[in-house]
Amino acid sequence: MSDARRVIAELKELAARTSTPEGAQRLAWGPVWRDARAWFQGKVAELGLRAEPDAAGNLWVTVPGDSARTIIMGSHLDCVPNGGWLDGCFGVVAALEALRSHARGKKPPVTLKLVDWADEEGARFGRSLFGSAAAAGTLQLEDVRGLKDRHGTALPDALRENGVDLERVLDAHTQFKAIDARAYLEVHIEQGPVLESLGKSTGVVIGTFGVERHMMRFTGQAAHSGSTPIPMRRDAFLAAAATALECRQIALRHSKPGAGVVCTVGVVNVEPRVVTAVPGVCEISLDQRALDAEVLAVMNREARAASERLARENNVTVEWRHLLRIAPRPFDPALLRLCEQSVQEVTGEAPRLPSGPLHDASEMAARVPTVMVFSSSTRGLSHCKEEDTPEEHLERTTRAFLGLVDRTVAHVAAAP
Amino acid sequence: MSDARRVIAELKELAARTSTPEGAQRLAWGPVWRDARAWFQGKVAELGLRAEPDAAGNLWVTVPGDSARTIIMGSHLDCVPNGGWLDGCFGVVAALEALRSHARGKKPPVTLKLVDWADEEGARFGRSLFGSAAAAGTLQLEDVRGLKDRHGTALPDALRENGVDLERVLDAHTQFKAIDARAYLEVHIEQGPVLESLGKSTGVVIGTFGVERHMMRFTGQAAHSGSTPIPMRRDAFLAAAATALECRQIALRHSKPGAGVVCTVGVVNVEPRVVTAVPGVCEISLDQRALDAEVLAVMNREARAASERLARENNVTVEWRHLLRIAPRPFDPALLRLCEQSVQEVTGEAPRLPSGPLHDASEMAARVPTVMVFSSSTRGLSHCKEEDTPEEHLERTTRAFLGLVDRTVAHVAAAP
Repeated sequence: MSDARRVIAELKELAARTSTPEGAQRLAWGPVWRDARAWFQGKVAELGLRAEPDAAGNLWVTVPGDSARTIIMGSHLDCVPNGGWLDGCFGVVAALEALRSHARGKKPPVTLKLVDWADEEGARFGRSLFGSAAAAGTLQLEDVRGLKDRHGTALPDALRENGVDLERVLDAHTQFKAIDARAYLEVHIEQGPVLESLGKSTGVVIGTFGVERHMMRFTGQAAHSGSTPIPMRRDAFLAAAATALECRQIALRHSKPGAGVVCTVGVVNVEPRVVTAVPGVCEISLDQRALDAEVLAVMNREARAASERLARENNVTVEWRHLLRIAPRPFDPALLRLCEQSVQEVTGEAPRLPSGPLHDASEMAARVPTVMVFSSSTRGLSHCKEEDTPEEHLERTTRAFLGLVDRTVAHVAAAP
Repeated sequence: MSDARRVIAELKELAARTSTPEGAQRLAWGPVWRDARAWFQGKVAELGLRAEPDAAGNLWVTVPGDSARTIIMGSHLDCVPNGGWLDGCFGVVAALEALRSHARGKKPPVTLKLVDWADEEGARFGRSLFGSAAAAGTLQLEDVRGLKDRHGTALPDALRENGVDLERVLDAHTQFKAIDARAYLEVHIEQGPVLESLGKSTGVVIGTFGVERHMMRFTGQAAHSGSTPIPMRRDAFLAAAATALECRQIALRHSKPGAGVVCTVGVVNVEPRVVTAVPGVCEISLDQRALDAEVLAVMNREARAASERLARENNVTVEWRHLLRIAPRPFDPALLRLCEQSVQEVTGEAPRLPSGPLHDASEMAARVPTVMVFSSSTRGLSHCKEEDTPEEHLERTTRAFLGLVDRTVAHVAAAP
């Protein structure tokens, strides 16, 4: 069996073990996730290696090299409830394959580490990138201490069930800093439609988008749908609708070929939400993303100005509430070149694209030179049981990733 | 005490008896409503008259005249939960005052009837104008037989508790047809901001709006907010937002001075309704109202065409689901003139306005020459405990209504 075929076979084995008819169920900190990790540890043991947890519950596997210079390959085994067979675990299993080739041959010139990050998805407690943020030192304990899941279980209790003490998770950052990390590599499915639409199996990821996420609350006056003439209305929904459309125009204005930006209104709540009432309140979410920090800041200022103008024009008010701000993470130029060569070698071309979703690589990119490889996603679907990628695309992408690892080993070994 | 002051005093008496700190609680078919009717029957008995139920639970009080020609005055004692002190009961108590003057003096030349319609609001089972529709013969039993309230109580069981057999409610239509009805008069609060904004206490209602009510369901494709470039999206919400804004433009185009039309998107539901997902489905309600049937039909056709065009432009589909269609009910020209004279006499002017909300008068207008008088509503509020009208406005409007009754008595008596 080729290396790439083995990756697919192992992914199917994992899916069979951790899925129901509704999809994969490897929710972080729960029993199916622990079982997935037990399966993974078995695979690691077959190589004569061990997977060791850090203080944040991340599992690390090390193949020591001639030098302490280290290349980290990472991804995550956890998934959303009713998830797919590829999101996260593709990266872990492909990285395992990279370890396998280096663990069996002669000692590599540099050290290789694989990390299975804990709770990338944040699907249970709402805090994504938990383990990688702890390792990177960006996790704020006061932000997560009070988190509860939908059943009322507190995050610290769920961690304790997994041998993790929340008050000590930042020790993982100390552990991370002790590594002489020279590169972070991650392979993932795109979770979007770009590669498929281009007819490509594999892409070079130029960075992860920065995010500006806010709620806008428009407040007007609820009124009877029959008795209130339109010029006397203070319709909060129409102000929000006009703002949402304007935010799309702002994003389109800032999109350039190869440097697209996005903007989404995903949540819409109107009150009182009855057929015969003019909405007195409308709350919408705004999620703006771009790879260029300055462009993102301008988009956000323009959206705010548009919401205020359209609120005035509709005789309502608007308040913004900040939800999330993430800096763009452009990837390392040297690693991008290696990635491009490797993808080019396997597929004959090397399309570049940004990553809209965040990945553990976003946390790593602030600390270590980082790059990612994407495999196409069928119909762009992810976080659902329909998530899929043609097997020949997975094979080619695996080969490109393994090539990237080899190139990076040589690059790091040769560095002055 | 003047007649008009007595109306206000009685309304306060009723409110004190049937309200909690959250507002009036005269929900149709329930104990507080029955208590309100018992209070009303006591007032009727003081006049030496009796309130008699018809087969639909409407209460009728008759002052026989020299002629069987009959003028009906009606409104409703029921209200929404946490309702106000005026909606519905103002019309009943003012009509009682009109009966009082005619019951005590010499026998009137024509017969006068007061009707307290059952369940105008439809607040419990969702079918408004229940009693008046039964009397008018427009109630469809098959549409209401299966209705249940939020606690699962079936409409037929709630009626039975009130001595009403659902299978026989249309006997009320037979009873109604036996009346030689020549006019239907109703006074109500406006429940909108028009009179207040004009600085007027009292208005002549030219008819009740026709209604076209539909749900539009836009279907695109849910997608990740980060990974899906804007040109590849099928965003159901933005298609709906653009349609809602366009429907407002359509209504503004069809509004003429004195013949305003309205249009409202009150319900908005997006799926999956998460911050990081492009909405794959968006459902909105559309409620269009106009006094001219042809204008209403054109508005509806234009809204449909706009929704289809905007769905196409956003690469989504749209389906319409019909909810409600009510014909406009322009009121009787001869009664409008009498109403105008009466309002003019009391207030010095007689602003005309349509009624956006439906009233029992909408059912009557199809069967009997009908007119309504409106009193201003403070801040246009209704269906809430803040519902109010300045007492001097209630007084003037009551006097105008009593004058209208007298004029109508003379008009009907003098008819050939």
